[in-house]
Amino acid sequence: MFAARAYDEISIDDIAEEAGISKGLLYHYFQSKREFYVEAIRASSLHLLQLTEPDPLLPPSARLRAAIDAHLNYIQEHGVVYQTINNGGISVAPEVGAILDEHREVVMGRVLKNLGISKPRPVLRTALRAWVAMVEGASLDWIAHKQQLSRDSLRELLVASYVALLDKAFKLDPDAARVDSEKTSRRRATSG
Amino acid sequence: MFAARAYDEISIDDIAEEAGISKGLLYHYFQSKREFYVEAIRASSLHLLQLTEPDPLLPPSARLRAAIDAHLNYIQEHGVVYQTINNGGISVAPEVGAILDEHREVVMGRVLKNLGISKPRPVLRTALRAWVAMVEGASLDWIAHKQQLSRDSLRELLVASYVALLDKAFKLDPDAARVDSEKTSRRRATSG
Repeated sequence: MFAARAYDEISIDDIAEEAGISKGLLYHYFQSKREFYVEAIRASSLHLLQLTEPDPLLPPSARLRAAIDAHLNYIQEHGVVYQTINNGGISVAPEVGAILDEHREVVMGRVLKNLGISKPRPVLRTALRAWVAMVEGASLDWIAHKQQLSRDSLRELLVASYVALLDKAFKLDPDAARVDSEKTSRRRATSG
Repeated sequence: MFAARAYDEISIDDIAEEAGISKGLLYHYFQSKREFYVEAIRASSLHLLQLTEPDPLLPPSARLRAAIDAHLNYIQEHGVVYQTINNGGISVAPEVGAILDEHREVVMGRVLKNLGISKPRPVLRTALRAWVAMVEGASLDWIAHKQQLSRDSLRELLVASYVALLDKAFKLDPDAARVDSEKTSRRRATSG
């Protein structure tokens, strides 16, 4: 709804009608239209995070490709929603900025977990943050240009830049590649 | 000024005082505080574009590094301004979105010109757009994390991803690498 029409054009009545509930019930859960909007964006963010959850049964490189494919599938289905959240959201409510940041942190946390690293050194953190920004920018461009590029080509571009960034980060600071092996073995020893 | 304080806290009087001109003169040039704000952002965008103008006398790889260095120098000096424009600008005035898009288009146009390509095929366009988004994301992360990473390391990360993206784009679609050689030679022939 928010993706299809301008925020200012949508009333609380419209939202209640669309949801098939009373305005009173809506106000029971949300203090204002703005709060509803922010929560709708938070829900979309969580939805996308669920869809892109890495599959631990896959080997690492297939895991990355599967997660990117899931992301691009979402974009193909919900492009307008993604655009609304990432382009327009902040102008409606600054809280959206915090939701987007949190989303990025979760994605980066997953990548780090796959790498076996809990506290990234600056070079790795920046490389991953740059990569996440690139995925967003590429996704928005893909939507704006009506997916002229095939999904497979876009995925391979994103994988190539991921590999190049990590490779360079580990060359610039070899310590950045050190996994949490000590901690992991200690935890394993105590938990198992 | 807009970087140091919240937009809503700044009055037209403050702006006039800071500029050392009368409120009347300010209103002669700008219809409103918002118009002034948008024009201030446009001026910052042009300033950054000037600073990062590629030097045609340098060989291509040095040209890219010099432009990235100029960009990162700007970030080091004017980090808060960059942050204000890229994070907060759109929430004050949606026109800022158009200024940012125009900025990106100019940067992409420069890269394409360096490659000798005027009309990029989709794979190259998306690769470059993704790279530009990555430069923005990395810059914002660098500011937020107080430049823990050295400028040289950040530049090399950005160069590495540029090289990887272009390399992959040209592999996915070899025609994307075709430069405007015909057009160029024709133009050269006619211009003498």
